[in-house]
Amino acid sequence: MIYVDSLLCSPLERETPDHRPALDQIAAGEVGCVVTTVGFWEDATESMDQLVKWRHMAEDNADLVEIAYTAGDIRRIADSGRCAIVLGFQNVSFLQGRLGYVELFARMGTRVGQLTYNIQSDIGGSCYEPHDSGLSRYGKYVVREMNRCGMVVDLSHVGNTTTLDAIRHSAEPVAITHSNPHSWAPHPRNKPDEVLDALKDNGGVIGLSVYRNIVGEHTTAEKWSEMVAWTVDRIGIEHVGIGTDFDQTGGMEYVSWMRQGRWARETQYGAGSKANPGKAPKLDWFASPADFPNAEQALRARGFDDREVALLMGENWLNFFDRTFKEL
Amino acid sequence: MIYVDSLLCSPLERETPDHRPALDQIAAGEVGCVVTTVGFWEDATESMDQLVKWRHMAEDNADLVEIAYTAGDIRRIADSGRCAIVLGFQNVSFLQGRLGYVELFARMGTRVGQLTYNIQSDIGGSCYEPHDSGLSRYGKYVVREMNRCGMVVDLSHVGNTTTLDAIRHSAEPVAITHSNPHSWAPHPRNKPDEVLDALKDNGGVIGLSVYRNIVGEHTTAEKWSEMVAWTVDRIGIEHVGIGTDFDQTGGMEYVSWMRQGRWARETQYGAGSKANPGKAPKLDWFASPADFPNAEQALRARGFDDREVALLMGENWLNFFDRTFKEL
Repeated sequence: MIYVDSLLCSPLERETPDHRPALDQIAAGEVGCVVTTVGFWEDATESMDQLVKWRHMAEDNADLVEIAYTAGDIRRIADSGRCAIVLGFQNVSFLQGRLGYVELFARMGTRVGQLTYNIQSDIGGSCYEPHDSGLSRYGKYVVREMNRCGMVVDLSHVGNTTTLDAIRHSAEPVAITHSNPHSWAPHPRNKPDEVLDALKDNGGVIGLSVYRNIVGEHTTAEKWSEMVAWTVDRIGIEHVGIGTDFDQTGGMEYVSWMRQGRWARETQYGAGSKANPGKAPKLDWFASPADFPNAEQALRARGFDDREVALLMGENWLNFFDRTFKEL
Repeated sequence: MIYVDSLLCSPLERETPDHRPALDQIAAGEVGCVVTTVGFWEDATESMDQLVKWRHMAEDNADLVEIAYTAGDIRRIADSGRCAIVLGFQNVSFLQGRLGYVELFARMGTRVGQLTYNIQSDIGGSCYEPHDSGLSRYGKYVVREMNRCGMVVDLSHVGNTTTLDAIRHSAEPVAITHSNPHSWAPHPRNKPDEVLDALKDNGGVIGLSVYRNIVGEHTTAEKWSEMVAWTVDRIGIEHVGIGTDFDQTGGMEYVSWMRQGRWARETQYGAGSKANPGKAPKLDWFASPADFPNAEQALRARGFDDREVALLMGENWLNFFDRTFKEL
């Protein structure tokens, strides 16, 4: 069994704080693959600078991690006892409005791109936007080009109208790497049943999150597993995985960059709120990647069998990457 | 036999003038591979825009050309009766001072990078610089990184001191894609015997040019072939090929961009001069890629046998690409 985390947002490429303890947590949890967050608001060259930093981090910690460019790479790296890093972005601001950059960033190793982060873009509307435009004309071209180039369309922070448009328009299965069902945890970041059903029909996968701001009341292993089980009942086991949304190392300056970027002067709270502005505390049973075995345990306790546990813990994502990653 | 042109500088990615007649000349000459000029002075994103334009041009003319990313691609494309396009730059301004971008541009498909164009850069000195700095410290890192990433180090417009430094410092064979022997045609763009000898020792290849400004008196097929024969005698047949330096479609605005970029207000003449400011007329026997068979004929007339002619017309470059291109 290979554990996959479909969304990690730890800024491990940064020189401070020392990222080795965070990598040790990933190793302790025997996590075989993480989709990382290379950027949020960066333009093309800033994103390229980020790609270089991630590469350097991986080179400097080759005993624990390696960047994966193919689904085969992921299995090989995981089988070696290390963690495969899949390069993903939580926004496609790296395109700078250029459709042609999809292929270039795919060639540079980018395998996952979220269509929007927390604000509207030239692609579509975000989950926090009061009026979601739906997928723009440019956005439609981008989705098809991402399909062609094997860059996974991620819809986690994307608004519901844009999400449904993107699912309809995509020629390939799409991902929701880190969200929960809205009917279980009402929050703009979570997905209504209509979206989950569309994801199922599309052949996509959702990574259920343990980020406290979006798990609602389901903070214990038992309650969280209940939410997993409900999701499995709703859309089928092959469409469900885990995307923790863990930030292991970023301080408030990083959280502020993530939430606010350069698009506002007024403080933005992201998935938090004015009353809850800081970093959300972690769930006590799943507080870092080191706790992945606890999730396996919780799913077994909920009654999933060996095969089902393996699918939920990572195989669904690996099968999804097999289908969606492409060599250009 | 596969004909290879190790330097074409036609701006075929531009929408005007229609590039189809230029591609027809390449097809008429049965040229199996050209190293193109994707850029001269462009920064990272401008260079990426250029890469996209070249891709679009190739897609739109897939009956005649295809972009080659590997040496195997070149042979496959040439064998299909079309021309393989190798993406090359006549400057590494796309790096924007970032060592880490070498790998990114290699991943995007760049296979050849000239260390400097007509002026000094952060890498080293050009052939027109009054004082050639030699290869800078950054330049040394860049050369080794290009080696690692399978991006060919091209030294055609590079100053002699920097050229010799780069040859000494390179861990891989280097290219001089479009120059002539200085002892036969004294011009700053041409290479003294010392450089040719160093190239031989390095295992590199020089593409002898038919650009009138740098052929000196050797404008006829007979005289040009004589220069080829002398070069073969000096450094061995496996180190010699053809790099025409043809510009089939660019007008004076393009020539001005090439020569002057954004680095001067005063008119720059490149390989020309104030007395000879325009586009140099072509040699009458080798006026476009359609005339490649004339070069074969001229070499046969000079006494080269079948094997030698095949090496000079393209096999030396293909063998060189086999050795230097790498898959990351």
